Amino acid sequence: MSDLPSDSSARPALAARYREVRSRSEELCTTLEPEDYQLQSMPDCSPPKWHLAHSAWFFETFLLVPHAPGYRVHHPRYGFLFNSYYDSIGDRWARPARGLLSRPTVAEVYAYRRAVDEGMLGLIESADDQVLGVIAPLVEIGLNHEEQHQELLLTDLKHAFGLNPLRPCYAPAVDVEAVDPSPLGWEPHQGGVRWIGHEGPGFTFDNEGPRHREYVAAFALASRPVNNGEYLAFIEDGGYDRPELWLSDGWAAGRDAGWSAPLHWHRDGPGHVLFTLRGMRPLDPAETVCHLSYYEADAYARWAGARLPTEAEWETASRSRPVEGNFLDSGRLHPTTAGGSFYGDVWVWTSSPYAAYRGYRPAAGALGEYNGKFMCNQMVLRGGSCVTPPGHVRPTYRNFFPPHARWQFSGLRLAKDLSE
Amino acid sequence: MSDLPSDSSARPALAARYREVRSRSEELCTTLEPEDYQLQSMPDCSPPKWHLAHSAWFFETFLLVPHAPGYRVHHPRYGFLFNSYYDSIGDRWARPARGLLSRPTVAEVYAYRRAVDEGMLGLIESADDQVLGVIAPLVEIGLNHEEQHQELLLTDLKHAFGLNPLRPCYAPAVDVEAVDPSPLGWEPHQGGVRWIGHEGPGFTFDNEGPRHREYVAAFALASRPVNNGEYLAFIEDGGYDRPELWLSDGWAAGRDAGWSAPLHWHRDGPGHVLFTLRGMRPLDPAETVCHLSYYEADAYARWAGARLPTEAEWETASRSRPVEGNFLDSGRLHPTTAGGSFYGDVWVWTSSPYAAYRGYRPAAGALGEYNGKFMCNQMVLRGGSCVTPPGHVRPTYRNFFPPHARWQFSGLRLAKDLSE
Amino acid sequence: MSDLPSDSSARPALAARYREVRSRSEELCTTLEPEDYQLQSMPDCSPPKWHLAHSAWFFETFLLVPHAPGYRVHHPRYGFLFNSYYDSIGDRWARPARGLLSRPTVAEVYAYRRAVDEGMLGLIESADDQVLGVIAPLVEIGLNHEEQHQELLLTDLKHAFGLNPLRPCYAPAVDVEAVDPSPLGWEPHQGGVRWIGHEGPGFTFDNEGPRHREYVAAFALASRPVNNGEYLAFIEDGGYDRPELWLSDGWAAGRDAGWSAPLHWHRDGPGHVLFTLRGMRPLDPAETVCHLSYYEADAYARWAGARLPTEAEWETASRSRPVEGNFLDSGRLHPTTAGGSFYGDVWVWTSSPYAAYRGYRPAAGALGEYNGKFMCNQMVLRGGSCVTPPGHVRPTYRNFFPPHARWQFSGLRLAKDLSE
Amino acid sequence: MSDLPSDSSARPALAARYREVRSRSEELCTTLEPEDYQLQSMPDCSPPKWHLAHSAWFFETFLLVPHAPGYRVHHPRYGFLFNSYYDSIGDRWARPARGLLSRPTVAEVYAYRRAVDEGMLGLIESADDQVLGVIAPLVEIGLNHEEQHQELLLTDLKHAFGLNPLRPCYAPAVDVEAVDPSPLGWEPHQGGVRWIGHEGPGFTFDNEGPRHREYVAAFALASRPVNNGEYLAFIEDGGYDRPELWLSDGWAAGRDAGWSAPLHWHRDGPGHVLFTLRGMRPLDPAETVCHLSYYEADAYARWAGARLPTEAEWETASRSRPVEGNFLDSGRLHPTTAGGSFYGDVWVWTSSPYAAYRGYRPAAGALGEYNGKFMCNQMVLRGGSCVTPPGHVRPTYRNFFPPHARWQFSGLRLAKDLSE
Repeated sequence: MSDLPSDSSARPALAARYREVRSRSEELCTTLEPEDYQLQSMPDCSPPKWHLAHSAWFFETFLLVPHAPGYRVHHPRYGFLFNSYYDSIGDRWARPARGLLSRPTVAEVYAYRRAVDEGMLGLIESADDQVLGVIAPLVEIGLNHEEQHQELLLTDLKHAFGLNPLRPCYAPAVDVEAVDPSPLGWEPHQGGVRWIGHEGPGFTFDNEGPRHREYVAAFALASRPVNNGEYLAFIEDGGYDRPELWLSDGWAAGRDAGWSAPLHWHRDGPGHVLFTLRGMRPLDPAETVCHLSYYEADAYARWAGARLPTEAEWETASRSRPVEGNFLDSGRLHPTTAGGSFYGDVWVWTSSPYAAYRGYRPAAGALGEYNGKFMCNQMVLRGGSCVTPPGHVRPTYRNFFPPHARWQFSGLRLAKDLSE
Repeated sequence: MSDLPSDSSARPALAARYREVRSRSEELCTTLEPEDYQLQSMPDCSPPKWHLAHSAWFFETFLLVPHAPGYRVHHPRYGFLFNSYYDSIGDRWARPARGLLSRPTVAEVYAYRRAVDEGMLGLIESADDQVLGVIAPLVEIGLNHEEQHQELLLTDLKHAFGLNPLRPCYAPAVDVEAVDPSPLGWEPHQGGVRWIGHEGPGFTFDNEGPRHREYVAAFALASRPVNNGEYLAFIEDGGYDRPELWLSDGWAAGRDAGWSAPLHWHRDGPGHVLFTLRGMRPLDPAETVCHLSYYEADAYARWAGARLPTEAEWETASRSRPVEGNFLDSGRLHPTTAGGSFYGDVWVWTSSPYAAYRGYRPAAGALGEYNGKFMCNQMVLRGGSCVTPPGHVRPTYRNFFPPHARWQFSGLRLAKDLSE
Repeated sequence: MSDLPSDSSARPALAARYREVRSRSEELCTTLEPEDYQLQSMPDCSPPKWHLAHSAWFFETFLLVPHAPGYRVHHPRYGFLFNSYYDSIGDRWARPARGLLSRPTVAEVYAYRRAVDEGMLGLIESADDQVLGVIAPLVEIGLNHEEQHQELLLTDLKHAFGLNPLRPCYAPAVDVEAVDPSPLGWEPHQGGVRWIGHEGPGFTFDNEGPRHREYVAAFALASRPVNNGEYLAFIEDGGYDRPELWLSDGWAAGRDAGWSAPLHWHRDGPGHVLFTLRGMRPLDPAETVCHLSYYEADAYARWAGARLPTEAEWETASRSRPVEGNFLDSGRLHPTTAGGSFYGDVWVWTSSPYAAYRGYRPAAGALGEYNGKFMCNQMVLRGGSCVTPPGHVRPTYRNFFPPHARWQFSGLRLAKDLSE
Repeated sequence: MSDLPSDSSARPALAARYREVRSRSEELCTTLEPEDYQLQSMPDCSPPKWHLAHSAWFFETFLLVPHAPGYRVHHPRYGFLFNSYYDSIGDRWARPARGLLSRPTVAEVYAYRRAVDEGMLGLIESADDQVLGVIAPLVEIGLNHEEQHQELLLTDLKHAFGLNPLRPCYAPAVDVEAVDPSPLGWEPHQGGVRWIGHEGPGFTFDNEGPRHREYVAAFALASRPVNNGEYLAFIEDGGYDRPELWLSDGWAAGRDAGWSAPLHWHRDGPGHVLFTLRGMRPLDPAETVCHLSYYEADAYARWAGARLPTEAEWETASRSRPVEGNFLDSGRLHPTTAGGSFYGDVWVWTSSPYAAYRGYRPAAGALGEYNGKFMCNQMVLRGGSCVTPPGHVRPTYRNFFPPHARWQFSGLRLAKDLSE
């Protein structure tokens, strides 16, 4: 899955990248109080402390234990506590109870990270070339894995802060200049057999391949994602109360949970205010809408007389675009109003259920559990969001969540058929 | 969705088909006691009485009320009681509580059916040609709908009878001659762009179209479905206890429910006995395995070093096959041992999530709720089963159930990639 | 628990009483359709068919198997199906699933009863005097047990019919003459040490003894139960929306379940109509209110500036009263408007948690499970109701239900302290 | 409920007592990490931080807001966050979600306490004599309320720490000298009418009165509570697997939750180890058994051929005993082995459901919700435990928990009938 050079010249680059990614996780926590590290507001979320410990456990388990001579596990129970879902590795602490672990403390988790960092940097430094060739791709998986948890740390924290009546701010508010929404255009794409999935150099996850052919019929893709103003029109047109717009499961999910707007929207007199990582702010119609479930995105598209794109369509359209946009490094921590870039801002729901590409085989061993076993009951999202670490996504990158999930920065971009 | 002739010459054929399908529903109930009509053993199942009443309600609601001059609904509350899921039609009795309605009685439900039959046959007889052109396709939908409920009536009843410690028989036991399992062969199919979905004359459901192109890479399909003996080898190899073989959701579902064999298998000393509609019988290794969830079928395929076919692959392979096999009219009410026909015996799970074909648009009005709103969280099954009414399925026919469902006659046929 | 004469002269009387009680169970079912026998509308309720079979099983298990020479159980699985809660007897079919047994059929259950009746009458006829002395008290328990199930059969059926939008009638409507409510008076009782509980001849359940002393302080008891008009005033005064009137658990139970009136009351324009075993009828203010939970009775009493009586108070007050009133044999199947008798009409909730009397010891063996193991989390009710079989209750009779239960004919009679 | 002197001379004593109780709450937290303050391991438990804030809110709400001129609430949302169950005060944060509030932080909660302390001490200092007469009893309620939360803080924390596989210690381990269990003796008490409940000087809760007469028949009370060795014999005799020993609800609760020993007992090879606030320690047979539910205590008593005492019996027996024993101030944080004192070590379950004494009237206003509304579905415990603050309990003190609760330091003392 990676083509990092494995000769000795790779060591400094690998160590530098290791340091960069690892330190970013901790930088994301500089505004947190110790109490915040403990928060788990629903079973799908994990506490910040757990994200920090689990990403260290990943390196310990898949790199240090098998490959670092003489390495001893930092604590005999941490494997039990910080394994996420690797059945091959053994039993583990129940996911919904991650918030019940006050110990290890935050300081102890940071000490764990220090121990793992020391081990890892030593391993990168001292491994012989053959071992380096083996571990370099694993390190790259570990770093991409940690980047995924950086995004989750922020979305999970936003979920927890959003529940608290005090509405804590993760970061200070900033002024955002109001702009007019750009008009929605349509970009046509011809039909034909297309190559889908990754091939070639550069790290990718196993689920992005093998590269294979799909027939993609002619379609048009919207020039930008849907924005708050457009979504508000759907709400005001009774969108949440019209079953004919909804998938059956979505209608039931929305009724059960009492959905009447995206997550993190709150009624405020006649209008809405939005909870953001930088505090409450008034609804900006030009801003890209986010925190939608698949069901809401699908219902909106039906209401708008359009549909969601397939992931093959999105990938086809993405090929000519630079991987640029509003990612985590912008520091905005929220979608922009411009809507002009193809990547970033919000993950866009596709109409594609998450499934294996033809010829897909998970890796042997525990890392084979990374992606493949989740290929059911989830939908694919593409493109990265405003809290995706820079450099993490690419045209073939496949994110996936169950259709009722709304706590990610998830939105939509409309598509429609073109006649062939 | 239908190309029935709509001129007057069609009347006798339409009336005859109406009589044939409607009477079959009642013939299926001849062995039932009044008490059996009431059974609802889980929310996914419905009582036989409800199936009989609901299929009458369908004709009353979509044919008689809008098209039969002067027709008055048989009972003012039956619309509330027997609407299944048509939100456009109005409120309805909660699905999990269908078994709580002792009234209307069985006799009253039959009287309802008589009243609807009288109305329907009168309508077919007396409608002018223009109306006949409108209603003939609707009648055909209603009859196909009733055929679907015939199958469900039997699978639901099997589920309920299977729970009863007295293990009631739906029909008398018959002797089945033991045969040797046929060896498993592989049939190769070349890759290329294929037309998928229905086009042309003959009734189909809306979800079978529009016909569209898909790229289907080279593949091989097993010469017959998996049989009990093969599945038993999976069990004996620890298949239910090896998480690496399972999708994550499937592993959780199986652990929660305590799965250790297909539904309706019971331990009997060292071996298994199977509950069938014709009573308990010893496991026959050559018999096609059934009552598997998608998760089990998928785990089996992984264990066997193969995979499930996509629905496009299955449909491609089906094109050259006659629609023949062990259907309801054989009277067996159980899969055969031969495994020689492509259709019938068991619905085979495909690896395809149930989704709209490109260009799919549900019908306007309430009938638009028939298929489209279920296109999420379900998997497609193909080919029909031993309790599918004869003539009901075809190459493009798409059945669908959630991946945990096991109470249908569902099995699997293996597939594998061929290099191109 | 019984002082039936055990010499031979007792045989005809015992046989006659056996026939009388047993036939009443079946007479209660003459208006039922076969479908009705299957109904189980909540886990606390049982289907009529189950009541009929369970009461037969009781005689089979505790009389015929141990005492009737050569008796063979009617069906090897009926013990599993129709045991209610006797752990000592063995495993049993899950209570919430009693409605899922279409087999044995109604006819088969009646055949079971016939077989048990034949065995029982033969046993009573032919047992020698010593055996008769042993079995006569057990027969009496079995008959009282069956009488309890007669009442439950009707309340369970009312619950199930009450859910059905068709509102089936158990019996035809009758005209009830309107009367003015009698004014509420208070009857004073002096304080002192009282003997509570049964002693002396006549059948009683084990929980009615041992007779023991309790100090009962001076109190007054209302001259009649609360009626619908008074309860309506509580509702109209916001009784269901004022937490200060409610026990904490009661407030939570009512909010969760959406209580706004007694069970079987339905809004009808500005007023209420009541579902009864004889169909819907308008609310009659003079009629004794029923289908209240303990929580509602307690909240009403608090609102009325009074309290519920203790069971010792009720029993003290009952001693001078004839055991007369509106019982099952009146055929009314509903409380009266007169409110003049001390017994019957409605079971009155007492403020006494159901607990063992001092010195209470359950019987040895399985019958020891009859009462004692339920002495927790339940409240005592006294006095019998309009569906209690005649002759079944007495001053010391203790009925008990959990405080949220509302499907019995349960109401209240106010009490208050008097200064000593 | 209190007879504190209300003249000016009372001010220093009241202020001193205020400081003593309030500071004890914080002293109990000196070993906690910030993360520990957040823990809520089940809905019945609350985080330490919440206990600290809620007990401050109590003084703010019932003392400062109504009685301190010019006092402004510390934070406008704290009333919503830290109200426990006072419906009269208004809406409140859902109890099961108390662990989801990372903000206010621990430091902010301590600041809240400081502000309340300042207000309270100022109020006590400056209130005129008339106001002092009004507030002094309320202050005493607030302090007793805080003492209750001190005990809960420790039991809740023990529950949460006990779940953590790291088994954190609240306090360092101490050596405990092994002693032989004292033999179990029986102390006889004559029967007669007894005065039960509080009367006279000294603070009590409203539920301890009014004083009233009860007939208490002759009984004997065990000379000490049941110890671990005795309870282990019950376990080894199959106590958890014999339904005939259990109340029906208790049997169901135990089976559902998988009980096979008291809470905080863990299998360790052939024996057991116990989790304590001072870490894991081997089972000591002479130590008083604790962390039993009512159901377990009741089953043990039945197995032992005895019964639980009523609360009137316990109170009768307690009258001649000094209120001495192993309370919080001993610093042991665990029951002793001696079993020699009547109070302390463990709360003993009585067989008495928690109910109002004759003539009980809750206070007017919100404080009336303190006790009365919980008088249903709970059992009374008596005597105080090893984590009850010194001076908190007395002969008439009534603690109460639902019968399934096991996370308190709850044990039992046997009783039996004596003939009169």
